[in-house]
Amino acid sequence: MRLNPLVVSLAVAGLMSAGFAHAGEGMWVPQQLPEIAGPLKKAGLKLSAKQLSNLTGDPMGAVVALGGCTASFVSPQGLVVTNHHCAYGAIQLNSTPEKNLIKNGFNAPTPADEVSAGPNARVYVLDSIKDVTTEAKAAIASAGGDALGRTKALEAFEKKLIADCEAEAGFRCRLYSFSGGNTYRLFRNLEIKDVRLAYAPPGSVGKFGGDIDNWMWPRHTGDFSFYRAYVGKDGKPAAYSPDNVPYRPKHWLKLADKPLGEGDFVMVAGYPGSTNRYALAEEFDNTAEWTYPTLAKHYKQLIALVSAAGKKNPDIQVKYASTMASWNNTSKNYDGQLEGFKRIDAATQKQAEETAVLNWLKGQGGKGATALAAHAKLIELLEQSKATRDRDIVLNQFNGTGTVGVATQLYRLSMEREKSNAERESGYQERDLPTIEGGLKQLERRYVPAMNRQLQAYWLGEYLKLPASQRVPAVDKWLGGKDSKAINRALDKLAATKLGSTEERMKWLTADRKAFETSKDPAIQYAVAVMPTLLKLEQERKTRAGEALVARPVYLQALSNYKKSQGKFVYPDANLSLRITFGNVTGYRPKDGVAYTPFTTLEGVVAKETGQDPFDSPKTLLDAVAAKRYGGLEDKRLGTVPVNFLSDLDITGGNSGSPVLDAHGKLVGLAFDGNWESVSSNWVFDPKMTRMIAVDGRYLRWIMQEVYPAPQLLKEMNVGK
Amino acid sequence: MRLNPLVVSLAVAGLMSAGFAHAGEGMWVPQQLPEIAGPLKKAGLKLSAKQLSNLTGDPMGAVVALGGCTASFVSPQGLVVTNHHCAYGAIQLNSTPEKNLIKNGFNAPTPADEVSAGPNARVYVLDSIKDVTTEAKAAIASAGGDALGRTKALEAFEKKLIADCEAEAGFRCRLYSFSGGNTYRLFRNLEIKDVRLAYAPPGSVGKFGGDIDNWMWPRHTGDFSFYRAYVGKDGKPAAYSPDNVPYRPKHWLKLADKPLGEGDFVMVAGYPGSTNRYALAEEFDNTAEWTYPTLAKHYKQLIALVSAAGKKNPDIQVKYASTMASWNNTSKNYDGQLEGFKRIDAATQKQAEETAVLNWLKGQGGKGATALAAHAKLIELLEQSKATRDRDIVLNQFNGTGTVGVATQLYRLSMEREKSNAERESGYQERDLPTIEGGLKQLERRYVPAMNRQLQAYWLGEYLKLPASQRVPAVDKWLGGKDSKAINRALDKLAATKLGSTEERMKWLTADRKAFETSKDPAIQYAVAVMPTLLKLEQERKTRAGEALVARPVYLQALSNYKKSQGKFVYPDANLSLRITFGNVTGYRPKDGVAYTPFTTLEGVVAKETGQDPFDSPKTLLDAVAAKRYGGLEDKRLGTVPVNFLSDLDITGGNSGSPVLDAHGKLVGLAFDGNWESVSSNWVFDPKMTRMIAVDGRYLRWIMQEVYPAPQLLKEMNVGK
Repeated sequence: MRLNPLVVSLAVAGLMSAGFAHAGEGMWVPQQLPEIAGPLKKAGLKLSAKQLSNLTGDPMGAVVALGGCTASFVSPQGLVVTNHHCAYGAIQLNSTPEKNLIKNGFNAPTPADEVSAGPNARVYVLDSIKDVTTEAKAAIASAGGDALGRTKALEAFEKKLIADCEAEAGFRCRLYSFSGGNTYRLFRNLEIKDVRLAYAPPGSVGKFGGDIDNWMWPRHTGDFSFYRAYVGKDGKPAAYSPDNVPYRPKHWLKLADKPLGEGDFVMVAGYPGSTNRYALAEEFDNTAEWTYPTLAKHYKQLIALVSAAGKKNPDIQVKYASTMASWNNTSKNYDGQLEGFKRIDAATQKQAEETAVLNWLKGQGGKGATALAAHAKLIELLEQSKATRDRDIVLNQFNGTGTVGVATQLYRLSMEREKSNAERESGYQERDLPTIEGGLKQLERRYVPAMNRQLQAYWLGEYLKLPASQRVPAVDKWLGGKDSKAINRALDKLAATKLGSTEERMKWLTADRKAFETSKDPAIQYAVAVMPTLLKLEQERKTRAGEALVARPVYLQALSNYKKSQGKFVYPDANLSLRITFGNVTGYRPKDGVAYTPFTTLEGVVAKETGQDPFDSPKTLLDAVAAKRYGGLEDKRLGTVPVNFLSDLDITGGNSGSPVLDAHGKLVGLAFDGNWESVSSNWVFDPKMTRMIAVDGRYLRWIMQEVYPAPQLLKEMNVGK
Repeated sequence: MRLNPLVVSLAVAGLMSAGFAHAGEGMWVPQQLPEIAGPLKKAGLKLSAKQLSNLTGDPMGAVVALGGCTASFVSPQGLVVTNHHCAYGAIQLNSTPEKNLIKNGFNAPTPADEVSAGPNARVYVLDSIKDVTTEAKAAIASAGGDALGRTKALEAFEKKLIADCEAEAGFRCRLYSFSGGNTYRLFRNLEIKDVRLAYAPPGSVGKFGGDIDNWMWPRHTGDFSFYRAYVGKDGKPAAYSPDNVPYRPKHWLKLADKPLGEGDFVMVAGYPGSTNRYALAEEFDNTAEWTYPTLAKHYKQLIALVSAAGKKNPDIQVKYASTMASWNNTSKNYDGQLEGFKRIDAATQKQAEETAVLNWLKGQGGKGATALAAHAKLIELLEQSKATRDRDIVLNQFNGTGTVGVATQLYRLSMEREKSNAERESGYQERDLPTIEGGLKQLERRYVPAMNRQLQAYWLGEYLKLPASQRVPAVDKWLGGKDSKAINRALDKLAATKLGSTEERMKWLTADRKAFETSKDPAIQYAVAVMPTLLKLEQERKTRAGEALVARPVYLQALSNYKKSQGKFVYPDANLSLRITFGNVTGYRPKDGVAYTPFTTLEGVVAKETGQDPFDSPKTLLDAVAAKRYGGLEDKRLGTVPVNFLSDLDITGGNSGSPVLDAHGKLVGLAFDGNWESVSSNWVFDPKMTRMIAVDGRYLRWIMQEVYPAPQLLKEMNVGK
């Protein structure tokens, strides 16, 4: 949750500029470090920008990705620190009613006691970044004026590139497009597959405040946990095995030896998922006026449906808990973004910026005209997608429900299997099979037939509300009617599917296309019936993408030029690749008459105590605070131990678990959330209100020293007593 | 509301000490000014303490009482400024559906256009204060060992003293007991009876934030209004007459010419109602554990009753609105106090303080023994009153309901009338008749028979729940049964009373005792039946009071000696007499990670705008802020006009409308509320959290200049443009 990139990105790739009027803004790509050396130094960095720009050196080489979260090595024995909420799946996986690690925490006395974080857990260690812009652009150009061909050419290029890159076992590669396709870079990571849980505080520390405090300040969450990375005896990545040995990273972070205070320099390296700061004003308007309100409304209705059903059936309550959490999180996030847009009048701001750029371009002659044409093309593409936006949501959502979703995915897989691996659609290649299989197996943990039917009924109901122009003949035919009776008939039929069984799904995983097309399973019959339409819609999307592949880089380059002409620095929108953000520890003024101070303290944890989840601290914590047992970790300025702190850094989902470094590159905390007012910065950065929330390294140490002691890990991190 | 002394005092008189560890604590009596001259200077006062101690000089002579509120003269033509909520009754009185002054405000272009604030409105101008301790103590001593006699002797002394004092027409006098009876002072005030409304801002300014913001920070309320005091042509107080002329005060406050900022010295002179800071720990416990929770519970149940009835009957909604507001205000206040007691662990603090005093006394020989005996006596008196505390609440409340309350009061009046005026019970003398008559007339505006019956049923139901030991034979007999049927019968009977009619009540106002005792009116019959019991209970209370008249001064003097031995300053508990409190403009930290800054601003008013009451500012205000039309009143440090501000001054109900003076004795604002965290300071002062909320003088000027212009009054106050 929190800063995982859970919220589905509605992003268009983009880039955004920033002067240093507001120091915190900017998700800088590592290649920009020389360029921002001045501002870094001005903000307080004591390390040289050169040292920082060595991504496999000290300290940057210690930063790793977990896939959705960020983490860092903190010992030469492969100890990794990240957020409690990033390790939550692993903690849950190892919990039983008798041994509830979520509630009680986990503390392996020795590495031998560490437990597997699960077959899908990963630690990605950056190996290299290669600029492949020239090659990617050549591939796109090879398709000439054929828009669909351009998308396909880029896909083919990407698949080949990754296959070559992953030829050596143990590596995982990914191609990133920056600034709408102005730059392409290939990231190669060592893929460590044996990840184990070493330590997690009790949930009442790690999740303190729960959903109530989520996105909120003041905050008091001990959102940290420890993994350890393991490799085979040969030092190479290997699946979990008792014989594996701890990975020995080249670099690891050291805990800070100077107390962090207000105004101090801090920086974060991590893997932010997605921002949309350089979307067109019209794209922004579509999101603010239609997409967010529409999705938030749907999610709230679905939440109400599942809540009501869950009250009668505890099985539904359990199995849809994470789905509900995701809907809740997303709709709350959208509401927060909309609130923020209103606060800063983002629509006017976006429009004014865009007008200024367009006016500037009008004075630029031929080059300007090209960019203006590109802008016009992007507007045209937006209008096209708006024409079917209702249908696209409804169809996507219905096709994602339980057994129907599985049937569609499996049938498509059988179709792709008919091609050579290299030619298959991305997501259906050999390298993707473990992920598909994992997902199919997990369905049993988040699926109840009666609930699934209600959700399908909801979306079919929405389908029937679509205007005639957005209806899909194949679905109409399959439904065989235009009223709720038709829906009931369709759902009665669908109820006979056997895909609710894991065994059955596993069987279909390797079935050939013909088997699907002759199957009597009603969910599979649905998939076969609508697949031609889905493929046609996919082609339309790819055609539009092919247009954008040419238009967007042209317009965004023009925009970048405009910004630079104004003396401003430019950084690309977040895209899950490694970024650096820096600034200072600072509070903010959420409203007139109120200031949020940058540190919370132990006493604030106790003040929130209610004895009830999520404000039920361990007794050892309450006792230690009552006795002022600060263990030498108190900050003199605060008179007590800091818990969480605010800074003006620029992060987003995917940054969860990112190490926060001080001016000397030492670890002072872990990023785990943004404040409520910052969520709208996804689209328009608000320097006054955008703040990162981090857990202070001293709180982490204090918990491991006084509350749920792990002297072995403190010693391993060289801060043992 | 807000700082009116509405919340019934459950006080025992007391005194409390304070070192200057926390500058804000202390409701100093004017006689203490020489003693606190050092601290005043240290806090920043530039005037001499000597100048300040001249209560009829400049600036103190400008401060006046309204009876329940404080105010001050601000022009030589008798212009008076106070809170909007203090003038609310007058505003309401002059409102009609066609001319809604509550909503639209009131602005008399010339004095001739000013409207009467009503026959009960008063402006009390301090004339003299006389120490009468020796005489009062002699009166008490004259009764020797007879406890009831002591109370009666003091009452007789008081009545004679006041009668003598009020012998000259136009004056109103009051005897105040300080520190539980260690000092007695007679206050003589000029009683101005022709008070007129000159200016009130629209309710959306004067009541901005309404009940939602009541007691809260950040606050944005323009809580100010203007009266003008009028006297007869001879310069002496007179009832309203068109021929009256503006009163010409000797002194009036000048608006500050230096902008107020954080840390600046401020002081308040005013008439705080009641505090209980030197109650015994046991008295505190009884309040915190029983009285507040019990009354809050009752009030909430009554609120629920009236709410439900009001939904069906709009007449009930209107007529019980102010009763509901009072219950709401009181129960919210009690809840806040209980919350505060918990926050600072007031019970432990009180107990520890008392233990220290008692231990100190044990080492003081004979004098200590006397004080310890006095302490023991006070505990004994408390235990006595606790034995019937349930009954006392139930009986008081039932006897206060509508027609029953009226009957009891009228019958008692007829009994008192049989005595000479001087001998009558206080509250039933000739001087009290206008107040009694006013109350009887007003009943029609806050009484609906059906609702009254429900409230009576509630309290009779509570009566039946009393343990046998607390039952009252006269009530039992009147009820004639022990179940809900008896209640219904009694209420059926009571329903026939004619006292619901104002005409009927006026008739009984002059009736003799015999008429009551032979009346067939069921409410009067109830009054006659229970009166002997009420008088007996009154005697018991007066007997306990007579014991306390001796014991409490002894113990409180000992406590004062103890505090002084600790090097601490001592001030008496609030008792509605004139007090001075001083300190500095400062915010506070309501909780970990949050700081409240001391000023709110115009932009904060706009940020709260919802378009709905109570957050519906006038369009002129919204437009002026949007245009940054600050009118030269902006504070350079804030970049805008301040609205409300916080300081660490020590005020309570009764201080509403008090002028806030700067270091030079100039008017910088009006006190109108305390913050939520301060309400518990009624019993135990919390220096960290106790803050006064004032409306800034610059906001007052800005409203009168840019929003609802009154250039004539600005000119009169010498700040016209």
